[in-house]
Amino acid sequence: MAGNSFGTLFKLTTFGESHGLALGGVIDGCPSGLELDFEAIQHELSRRKPGQSAIVTQRKEEDEVEFLSGIFEGKTTGTPIGFIIRNTNQKSNDYSHIQDVFRPSHADFTYEKKYGNRDYRGGGRSSARETACRVVAGAIAKQLLKNVTIQAYTSSVGNLYLRKPYQDLDLSTVESNEVRCPDVVVAQEMIDKIKEIRKQGDTIGGTVTCVLKNVPIGLGEPVFDKLHADLGKAMLSINAVKGFEYGSGFCGTEMKGSEHNDIFNPDGSTQTNLSGGIQGGISNGMDIYFRVAFKPVATIMQEQDTIDAQGNTVKMHGKGRHDPCVVPRAVPIVEAMAALVLADFYLMNKVYK
Amino acid sequence: MAGNSFGTLFKLTTFGESHGLALGGVIDGCPSGLELDFEAIQHELSRRKPGQSAIVTQRKEEDEVEFLSGIFEGKTTGTPIGFIIRNTNQKSNDYSHIQDVFRPSHADFTYEKKYGNRDYRGGGRSSARETACRVVAGAIAKQLLKNVTIQAYTSSVGNLYLRKPYQDLDLSTVESNEVRCPDVVVAQEMIDKIKEIRKQGDTIGGTVTCVLKNVPIGLGEPVFDKLHADLGKAMLSINAVKGFEYGSGFCGTEMKGSEHNDIFNPDGSTQTNLSGGIQGGISNGMDIYFRVAFKPVATIMQEQDTIDAQGNTVKMHGKGRHDPCVVPRAVPIVEAMAALVLADFYLMNKVYK
Amino acid sequence: MAGNSFGTLFKLTTFGESHGLALGGVIDGCPSGLELDFEAIQHELSRRKPGQSAIVTQRKEEDEVEFLSGIFEGKTTGTPIGFIIRNTNQKSNDYSHIQDVFRPSHADFTYEKKYGNRDYRGGGRSSARETACRVVAGAIAKQLLKNVTIQAYTSSVGNLYLRKPYQDLDLSTVESNEVRCPDVVVAQEMIDKIKEIRKQGDTIGGTVTCVLKNVPIGLGEPVFDKLHADLGKAMLSINAVKGFEYGSGFCGTEMKGSEHNDIFNPDGSTQTNLSGGIQGGISNGMDIYFRVAFKPVATIMQEQDTIDAQGNTVKMHGKGRHDPCVVPRAVPIVEAMAALVLADFYLMNKVYK
Amino acid sequence: MAGNSFGTLFKLTTFGESHGLALGGVIDGCPSGLELDFEAIQHELSRRKPGQSAIVTQRKEEDEVEFLSGIFEGKTTGTPIGFIIRNTNQKSNDYSHIQDVFRPSHADFTYEKKYGNRDYRGGGRSSARETACRVVAGAIAKQLLKNVTIQAYTSSVGNLYLRKPYQDLDLSTVESNEVRCPDVVVAQEMIDKIKEIRKQGDTIGGTVTCVLKNVPIGLGEPVFDKLHADLGKAMLSINAVKGFEYGSGFCGTEMKGSEHNDIFNPDGSTQTNLSGGIQGGISNGMDIYFRVAFKPVATIMQEQDTIDAQGNTVKMHGKGRHDPCVVPRAVPIVEAMAALVLADFYLMNKVYK
Repeated sequence: MAGNSFGTLFKLTTFGESHGLALGGVIDGCPSGLELDFEAIQHELSRRKPGQSAIVTQRKEEDEVEFLSGIFEGKTTGTPIGFIIRNTNQKSNDYSHIQDVFRPSHADFTYEKKYGNRDYRGGGRSSARETACRVVAGAIAKQLLKNVTIQAYTSSVGNLYLRKPYQDLDLSTVESNEVRCPDVVVAQEMIDKIKEIRKQGDTIGGTVTCVLKNVPIGLGEPVFDKLHADLGKAMLSINAVKGFEYGSGFCGTEMKGSEHNDIFNPDGSTQTNLSGGIQGGISNGMDIYFRVAFKPVATIMQEQDTIDAQGNTVKMHGKGRHDPCVVPRAVPIVEAMAALVLADFYLMNKVYK
Repeated sequence: MAGNSFGTLFKLTTFGESHGLALGGVIDGCPSGLELDFEAIQHELSRRKPGQSAIVTQRKEEDEVEFLSGIFEGKTTGTPIGFIIRNTNQKSNDYSHIQDVFRPSHADFTYEKKYGNRDYRGGGRSSARETACRVVAGAIAKQLLKNVTIQAYTSSVGNLYLRKPYQDLDLSTVESNEVRCPDVVVAQEMIDKIKEIRKQGDTIGGTVTCVLKNVPIGLGEPVFDKLHADLGKAMLSINAVKGFEYGSGFCGTEMKGSEHNDIFNPDGSTQTNLSGGIQGGISNGMDIYFRVAFKPVATIMQEQDTIDAQGNTVKMHGKGRHDPCVVPRAVPIVEAMAALVLADFYLMNKVYK
Repeated sequence: MAGNSFGTLFKLTTFGESHGLALGGVIDGCPSGLELDFEAIQHELSRRKPGQSAIVTQRKEEDEVEFLSGIFEGKTTGTPIGFIIRNTNQKSNDYSHIQDVFRPSHADFTYEKKYGNRDYRGGGRSSARETACRVVAGAIAKQLLKNVTIQAYTSSVGNLYLRKPYQDLDLSTVESNEVRCPDVVVAQEMIDKIKEIRKQGDTIGGTVTCVLKNVPIGLGEPVFDKLHADLGKAMLSINAVKGFEYGSGFCGTEMKGSEHNDIFNPDGSTQTNLSGGIQGGISNGMDIYFRVAFKPVATIMQEQDTIDAQGNTVKMHGKGRHDPCVVPRAVPIVEAMAALVLADFYLMNKVYK
Repeated sequence: MAGNSFGTLFKLTTFGESHGLALGGVIDGCPSGLELDFEAIQHELSRRKPGQSAIVTQRKEEDEVEFLSGIFEGKTTGTPIGFIIRNTNQKSNDYSHIQDVFRPSHADFTYEKKYGNRDYRGGGRSSARETACRVVAGAIAKQLLKNVTIQAYTSSVGNLYLRKPYQDLDLSTVESNEVRCPDVVVAQEMIDKIKEIRKQGDTIGGTVTCVLKNVPIGLGEPVFDKLHADLGKAMLSINAVKGFEYGSGFCGTEMKGSEHNDIFNPDGSTQTNLSGGIQGGISNGMDIYFRVAFKPVATIMQEQDTIDAQGNTVKMHGKGRHDPCVVPRAVPIVEAMAALVLADFYLMNKVYK
């Protein structure tokens, strides 16, 4: 397997399956002398963790991070930061019912075809539990990017959309409700929707919008490593993501150039921001905003037809404690991945200054 | 500047500005013994080149590729393939009117802030002419992936959509019209639309859909380097792209799991394909399909307000020969980038077999 | 800090300081289905560990490796192998006497200048304890390279040389003595020498020779990543190494081409092997052999002049338990690094077959 | 083929065979605004080129570099610098006599085994002509490192050694003689030796010593990417190199710690410099010096036994114009590779400042 590292200068490497002893990661390239707020890191983990509210999976995972290196007297030393998150709740037997079947729209089939084996205990590296390590690293990246604000929120659940643009929202209220939607009315509708879906034993998709403020001008590289290209890859690497758009996005394709161009103010800011804070792949100092599409979770509590490893058609029925909608818990993951991308380009930008 | 290379094992590095002596690239990692069809390569370049039809820019660029290394007696030798495309039509004086102004929604402003200089002769590395090198490399990647079919087409221009799913289209007709839309009726509407927009001195956005058939099972890596994450990055690295979605994409977010799951057939294929041929980041043998959003070209033939390097508000008016709609010429670029991603994962997959 | 990863396809990332909670590493890219011999891994660690004999440091470090991921039912799964080695004997107070001084010929000075801080508890990442992680990964790489034999040995201590070429030695006897020299007589002289040096409170350098047998033909890349270039880098990255030569090495510079050329046998093997098993950077199937130079350990049990962080001249005296000669414990580290290089090229070679 | 790139932030990618249309390279990551001295670049190429004196190969190669991108009005723009060197003297028929035989101690055998083909016209990528591209990039790297002095010289030819340490030599005289040895008497002996060897139709090895002055403190990374490890790899990647040592090197292995330690002066410099300017893999501000071993050139003008591709024993006789001793022309290549390593670490060091 390749591809367990992310980033060039601020580089995260992760390891661990949901049912092994521990997950963990190594952050190579974090500058020295950064004073860490450990509560803030643990807080991000808690935003991601299962069991945090009535509308997410009721699995109990404590998700406590242990730092093993790279920190001395509360500050980073510049050496690699190694950390682990123990798996305290690995009931491998939970999975015996799926040991021999390929779950529809899961990675079971592709995994077995690719690696010739399957860790049926929970999806191996395809388990969304892997993202806990991204959240730890992202929380540190956020602290490195002191002046930058990274705030994501749930902007739709199924066909319920928060239609206001982010500028009209009070993003400080995101954490005030379980679904992480900064509009009380829509939030309540979303929560009701998710509860209803769960009652049906079903799941539902949604979108997350993310806003990055105070990003320094000049992050991103003009050709293959455009800032939005790496943000897009980062988001698309999160489990269940099916799409990414930034700035005017897909809507922008319907516009004319005369409508879409962002006219400059004398100070170099722009009157509109359909560019989404990035021009030619490089941040221009305006807000960066993007939207990420999440499909409905594949594990449903209904009977489905599927096949076993021998190609026999079998019936299967989801068991266990799964998210009816992945979006509320995806919010901190989206932020973490955005932070990793920005931290990497922030360091890269120091090279060529 | 960083980020002029793409890929890990099948790796393209590009260089060159639109107004220097030549553009070029190096492909490192192409296996030896591949018999090259040079006409096919030149054909791809011609699909991208300016002046090819009445609805694209009327600039004359010959875009002839010269191979300098890596090929002996018509076959690849395994050594790096170096190539150049000369700039034969570099009228630098065309650009004198913009030498001192920042064009709205172009990279001029961010470029100057980042690098402290500006090659005002045509956007430096931000010029879309850079993509010619991607098309050369992509054409070779296509030949490496003999059994895979990679076909893109124009699926919308402004608010004119080709609403049929790709399965209902005859993709062999894509090249039969200037706009590269495999439906004669919609194609004609798109062409008329683009001509009308050009008459207004304006530009318009659109989308490209791409379909990959016969991709071997097992391409992609399950964590950061998911197949669709790298496809997304590849597409987002193309000039003017604002969004990417694959499989059910943004529409999938409105669906329930019970509707979205792709039920297996006994042979491992699936009855539906909302997954878009990728599960857990790994190809499953079904068609891969995705959609790419292109914003309207920023250079318009109308007067616009903007600022100069000193922050003074000035009027500017686009000159020269520009595309009213970038989408028809983007079709081969989308295909080329898809081919590069697949070729890289195809080689990576040989490692862990 | 950068540079905590080694390898491209079989990639080791390490973390940890000698005085933190744990050291550890992640191996990304180990193929799936490899049955691991855990005793063999622990055995390699024991060959490296302090306190193993009378002629090495008497520090007590248990060096037990805990695998956290990537292994299921005794076999690799293809996912990243995360592991840690706890620091059970971290007496930080041992180091209080050097907290404020720069030890001569140590990394204290350069480290503080580079990072603006110093983890005075034992050298931070410059501690040779970091090599324990290399030994773990190298032991796994050895198991991947089933048919290859990798055997290093002590070929000199100070001016005591084992003058016989490796072909005249019984390499199976390397472990039969504490100094790891496959010649009983010279071994005893070396041991006596080291004991005498230790009595003086001094240290001594030496060389390690390493022989790689049955390396498949074709490993290595012809330009920058020549097989011997990567072997050289690997060896030079080990603490205290000052030189590397392979095949005829520095002696070969005195020879004529007519003496140095290795004439082929009809089967493609060569009559002599001054090339050292590598031609044009690519293995040719003959034995690969090389020699690594280790300087004397910088920490001596004698009073030395040095300076403190303020530039004052001070006296210092080494304390603690240090190696009088690093060479016997370096033998398994040399083997491990050789195994990592070979494993990486072995996988790379599968790509272009 | 992999491995045609060198460096991480100042990255050179090369392409081209000795008998194709052109060699070339791309430098990605050179900062913008560097005013280039083109004569100095061409001068370095001339130091490497064949036919420059009576003691090197009499092949005529003009080795003129053409820059295609990355430079505007005499300064770097920050974009990739693409360049080519045309092959003007490709007499492919010169090589017909070796088309079917494996030359002893050349890469013919390994190349054919690895790639399944052979470009018999001159060694493909194994031709030393590839190093011309390194010299171009190194010359630019030298200009980036304005205050650093990089000077190499011939320190031995066969068993003729220049025994004075570099501190006792006037390095400004290196170019005053054909063999590039900064001691007139020894230089003349070396020249006579090479002429005698050539008369015999034979070749001879030698060593190059290189001295780097005014290297900033702090270059290099403490673990795998130690400064001397990357210097070692750089040197070992040059054709015909068999060994590398820095500072006290192999001699240092005979010393005691009490003799070898470099005692600090109050200003942080050291009284001796057996460390060779690097401690813990990081430059300490003292001179860096190292020695590189070159084997005798494999092509000799004498009859040798060898085999053909079918394993038949055949006689072969070298033809053409080859170097009797590679060392004089290797001097600028050693400098170029050293400059590339330093430039890369110089940029990396800006990240973590």
